[in-house]
Amino acid sequence: MAEKRPFDILNAALNNSVIVGMKGGYEIRGTMVAFDVHMNIVLEKAEQLVDGQVKKGLGTVLLRGDSVIYISPAFSP
Amino acid sequence: MAEKRPFDILNAALNNSVIVGMKGGYEIRGTMVAFDVHMNIVLEKAEQLVDGQVKKGLGTVLLRGDSVIYISPAFSP
Amino acid sequence: MAEKRPFDILNAALNNSVIVGMKGGYEIRGTMVAFDVHMNIVLEKAEQLVDGQVKKGLGTVLLRGDSVIYISPAFSP
Amino acid sequence: MAEKRPFDILNAALNNSVIVGMKGGYEIRGTMVAFDVHMNIVLEKAEQLVDGQVKKGLGTVLLRGDSVIYISPAFSP
Amino acid sequence: MAEKRPFDILNAALNNSVIVGMKGGYEIRGTMVAFDVHMNIVLEKAEQLVDGQVKKGLGTVLLRGDSVIYISPAFSP
Amino acid sequence: MAEKRPFDILNAALNNSVIVGMKGGYEIRGTMVAFDVHMNIVLEKAEQLVDGQVKKGLGTVLLRGDSVIYISPAFSP
Amino acid sequence: MAEKRPFDILNAALNNSVIVGMKGGYEIRGTMVAFDVHMNIVLEKAEQLVDGQVKKGLGTVLLRGDSVIYISPAFSP
Repeated sequence: MAEKRPFDILNAALNNSVIVGMKGGYEIRGTMVAFDVHMNIVLEKAEQLVDGQVKKGLGTVLLRGDSVIYISPAFSP
Repeated sequence: MAEKRPFDILNAALNNSVIVGMKGGYEIRGTMVAFDVHMNIVLEKAEQLVDGQVKKGLGTVLLRGDSVIYISPAFSP
Repeated sequence: MAEKRPFDILNAALNNSVIVGMKGGYEIRGTMVAFDVHMNIVLEKAEQLVDGQVKKGLGTVLLRGDSVIYISPAFSP
Repeated sequence: MAEKRPFDILNAALNNSVIVGMKGGYEIRGTMVAFDVHMNIVLEKAEQLVDGQVKKGLGTVLLRGDSVIYISPAFSP
Repeated sequence: MAEKRPFDILNAALNNSVIVGMKGGYEIRGTMVAFDVHMNIVLEKAEQLVDGQVKKGLGTVLLRGDSVIYISPAFSP
Repeated sequence: MAEKRPFDILNAALNNSVIVGMKGGYEIRGTMVAFDVHMNIVLEKAEQLVDGQVKKGLGTVLLRGDSVIYISPAFSP
Repeated sequence: MAEKRPFDILNAALNNSVIVGMKGGYEIRGTMVAFDVHMNIVLEKAEQLVDGQVKKGLGTVLLRGDSVIYISPAFSP
């Protein structure tokens, strides 16, 4: 299990729902359709969450990796 | 779909309306006419938004990639 | 003992419980199943802590190394 | 139009009036007489603006690119 | 004495008690058992201090160099 | 005029009075006697300004380029 | 005088008293016994100052260059 790598969970989560925590306190949920080594991420059907509730719809959104704090598959085991 | 890349949505959004979230809480909407690998972005007919309302017109504006948090096509599927 | 290196404690903590302090005041506890040289970290059964109490479950989460402040094995000697 | 690049608007704005937004909330207007690839910028007849009003004159000023958030030609189409 | 280098005091402090000031206002005291060129530091028997008083025990902790502000041997001459 | 470069105004201001704006809100005035490509700057007879008034004398001071926001010759045309 | 360089004043100040301003508002005075190209600095007999008054003694302390804002010889001409 020592060979497991952080980006493995991004590959596994591709085309599934994730929640992304961003600098500045943004929390965004959507379907992750693309990412790169800088952790730039594209979500579709994205929604901004405040205290776990949907605040507003964002449609498709590109999140800059530099501002990402965490990424969590929405339905993880 | 695994080959999809984050910058693809910038190419697709070229010459269309986008909303850009910036560090410091700025939210700016305009027509994206140029971008580069650093996510430096040029918007035309740009407007600063506060709570989704237009606060003031900015005309043409160059946004420094380093300060970008997210980019969202204004009318995404 | 001079040859001991900081990443040794990450290797030793693999598959065990750790607490990670993040920029922005997040404190997250979970089982560390992966990390890399950038201190990107994957936790399973992760929980966000506030003042040492569980605030909410996060399931699996990828923490961006750039936002990590400290990592502490939960049951250290 | 895909070949348009962000720095093109800096070339076009050379020797014309621009408004520069800086980290820390500074907004500065002046005639841009020089810039480089780091977005270091020199303004002449520069003035600091607060809420769109002139707060004080700065004369010639070198703005460090690292602190630039946006650059907008003052009279853009 | 001009050849003295900053990392010399880390070598001298190895296996001794140090106090580390971190971004975000954390102050942590413990026995430094490892460090690297990025100033990543491992403390054992670590304690978080608030106003010089022990707030809580942390056991073993890896501090990310990027967040370190200062390191002071606890009993310096 | 397109060949004018930002560092030209630093060369021109050498041994003259400048005002330097720093991150954290510091404003410092003094005679610039040295600088390098990182915008590290040495001022002599330096004074910290608050709202344009002298708060205290600093004598000779080295300002770290990384913290510089702007540099303005004190008596610019 | 154009060949004067910022690090010259650090060489000149070696083994003398300096005041160092740090991010986060720390101001520290002590005898500078070592520094490197990253502006990592070691002070001996260091004291933390608040409003110019000694708040507490720190003994020997390594200051991380990344957090340094300015360095001023305590008794400059």
